[in-house]
Amino acid sequence: MIFQEMNKQQLKDLRDEFSEKYNQLKSRNLSLDMSRGKPSPDQLDLSIDMLGCVNDESGYKAENGFDCRNYGVLDGIPECKKLFANLLEVDEKNIIIGGNSSLTIMFDYITQCMISGAGEKPWGKQNVKFICPVPGYDRHFSICEYFGIEMITVDLLEDGPDMDKVEELIKDPSVKGMFVVPKYSNPCGNTFSDECVMRFSNLKPAAKDFRVIWDNAYCIHDIAEDNDKLMNIFEACKGKESEDFFVEVTSTSKISFPGSGVSAIAASEKNIDMIKKRMAIQTIGNDKLNQLRHVRFFKDVDGLKEHMKLHAEKLKPRFDVILDYFEKELSGKGIAKWSNPKGGYFISLDIMNGCAKKVVSMCSQAGIVLTDAGATYPYGIDKNDSNIRIAPSYPSIEELKDAVEGLCICIKLVCAEKLLEN
Amino acid sequence: MIFQEMNKQQLKDLRDEFSEKYNQLKSRNLSLDMSRGKPSPDQLDLSIDMLGCVNDESGYKAENGFDCRNYGVLDGIPECKKLFANLLEVDEKNIIIGGNSSLTIMFDYITQCMISGAGEKPWGKQNVKFICPVPGYDRHFSICEYFGIEMITVDLLEDGPDMDKVEELIKDPSVKGMFVVPKYSNPCGNTFSDECVMRFSNLKPAAKDFRVIWDNAYCIHDIAEDNDKLMNIFEACKGKESEDFFVEVTSTSKISFPGSGVSAIAASEKNIDMIKKRMAIQTIGNDKLNQLRHVRFFKDVDGLKEHMKLHAEKLKPRFDVILDYFEKELSGKGIAKWSNPKGGYFISLDIMNGCAKKVVSMCSQAGIVLTDAGATYPYGIDKNDSNIRIAPSYPSIEELKDAVEGLCICIKLVCAEKLLEN
Repeated sequence: MIFQEMNKQQLKDLRDEFSEKYNQLKSRNLSLDMSRGKPSPDQLDLSIDMLGCVNDESGYKAENGFDCRNYGVLDGIPECKKLFANLLEVDEKNIIIGGNSSLTIMFDYITQCMISGAGEKPWGKQNVKFICPVPGYDRHFSICEYFGIEMITVDLLEDGPDMDKVEELIKDPSVKGMFVVPKYSNPCGNTFSDECVMRFSNLKPAAKDFRVIWDNAYCIHDIAEDNDKLMNIFEACKGKESEDFFVEVTSTSKISFPGSGVSAIAASEKNIDMIKKRMAIQTIGNDKLNQLRHVRFFKDVDGLKEHMKLHAEKLKPRFDVILDYFEKELSGKGIAKWSNPKGGYFISLDIMNGCAKKVVSMCSQAGIVLTDAGATYPYGIDKNDSNIRIAPSYPSIEELKDAVEGLCICIKLVCAEKLLEN
Repeated sequence: MIFQEMNKQQLKDLRDEFSEKYNQLKSRNLSLDMSRGKPSPDQLDLSIDMLGCVNDESGYKAENGFDCRNYGVLDGIPECKKLFANLLEVDEKNIIIGGNSSLTIMFDYITQCMISGAGEKPWGKQNVKFICPVPGYDRHFSICEYFGIEMITVDLLEDGPDMDKVEELIKDPSVKGMFVVPKYSNPCGNTFSDECVMRFSNLKPAAKDFRVIWDNAYCIHDIAEDNDKLMNIFEACKGKESEDFFVEVTSTSKISFPGSGVSAIAASEKNIDMIKKRMAIQTIGNDKLNQLRHVRFFKDVDGLKEHMKLHAEKLKPRFDVILDYFEKELSGKGIAKWSNPKGGYFISLDIMNGCAKKVVSMCSQAGIVLTDAGATYPYGIDKNDSNIRIAPSYPSIEELKDAVEGLCICIKLVCAEKLLEN
């Protein structure tokens, strides 16, 4: 029955029933963490043989004979550049290999824009605003907040950000850029449609130093068979003089090891040059032995894609536990809707307005840790207090069953209480 | 015979003799690189077993059970923090483990000061000057230049920077800091005396956000038996409320692998907190598997120190080739003096004023690549045109013999020509 159609007594009965269930839940002293998109240990085991791929026997030299143990090679060893060039479908000259995380690449790139600018005056000497599709990735918002970049939200729709709004906002020359997750977005799991990517490539921002950080974190992170396809942004830009507006990043954090992966940038030659100029001051080159490990283990893009099927085998049952339980317990009740992603690491759950913070807090008290409510919005403020990000990758199937059961108890209890308040 | 005491004819004869030798040198088509402080392949071989220290058999968990493959642990795994705490003789709570290079730590720290300040207004919104002991490390100067920090030189004397000048300069509130290499300095090989370190600890800068980047790159990098001892700056600061002025960095770049080492910061709790706040936005944590490899391979500080003796065995003969040849060919001629360091990676050579650029250029034409003349001064300007940095670590003994022979030919030729000009 739809909650909103219940009378007071029905709601009271429901509240009492789930209040009792919540007390039972608390008495179980659970300790479960669904807060971050962390691969599970059994996913990490999939890459364990990589650790043996560089040793005294196999050698430590790149294909061109370069000793990967020593200083040098700012932008990555050639075979690793080739791997990522093929992955992102760009030319090797448009690739720079980074350290163990694309987060650091993004932070350092914004630093570069603040200090040296993006072809114009340093951002640090300008008033800088970013467009933020919401719900979005909390770490993107944190970077903006750290650098004092004002955040303007636009809705993330089924097929990408609200491009009407984006096209309007970029008429303001102080609007300097965006962070976007174009495929299997965090947390919604949406993939930008071809039309959306084309509209991005056609943008004519007032700011000549406009930059979209195209965070392609989940480029091959499918969990369903009929996976999403993302149009190549640099292909879309061809002939439009807009390629400088896009800086794409990705990493193997959720392919090999989250703490010891390899990241990469894809960008126009002009942007690559500017990034290398900064890197020449900042670093002696990233860890080339780890680049070598990755290339030797995965071999090529086909190797990467095959490996992702093994991840999907671990992930799909975990997503299904959550989605099946939501379907059974929450559908047709008017209190929740959720995403059903074909890839990525998250399920985005929207519950009745004004209830998310309370639900997350009650879950926490019952030993079920979720991402903070509001985290998917700039400054942690979800004005509807409705969105909850679910990260099902890390717990075991059994733990997920407990977690989703507990979560649904909290949702029903909080929603019933909320309706009784009115 | 002293060049300056020769008559014209003697100088002409000398010039002709060495001009002939230079032509012979060029005809040998050498290809030698003494430009950077790069360990030789036989030094890198010393750590090769480290690559096998983390694998499926040995496991990938830290002592506290943490899975080093996954996300998390911003400041380093406990056993790695302990290793560096013991190395730098500070408490573990004063340590943060970085990525593969202390250069990046330093760059990122200056970024942090530019964006967020060092307890006061962001440096990016102030006029910032740094005191630069010269000759010094070119990459320190490059960082200052990148961030638009004005550089004021002071002489690096036998026992440290000219502290009279430093104490005078810090009365200017826009003088915000210094980069120093307190032990086996780059390029001079000097180590700061206890008195110098005490004077540092007693500094009363007008700028409350004054910061000395204490780049202890060569903390255990002895090549002589009677090695230098450096007083612990944080011990010296005790009871003086000056500890926040110092941020110490080091790394294993020249202990394990230059491209795949581990770096560390030692700083006051206040500075550590500020650095962690930035890191929480910038990174998902540095490569913990590599931290684990290092701890398992070196075990403890004694292990590190024993390992450095193996490096010294490779380095000392290389330094000796250069120093012995200088002694034989250049001493008592009034045209050159040089350092005789007990550790570090460089020999600092000062030749007759106005000759360094010419010598480096002629060496280069003969296939002997040296560090650019001027590189040891801010903006690449050595107003005496006298200092040349020699990096003897990378070439083989035979190559070094060729290189130093060629270098001395060029020096004598250029000095004779210079004197003939007058």
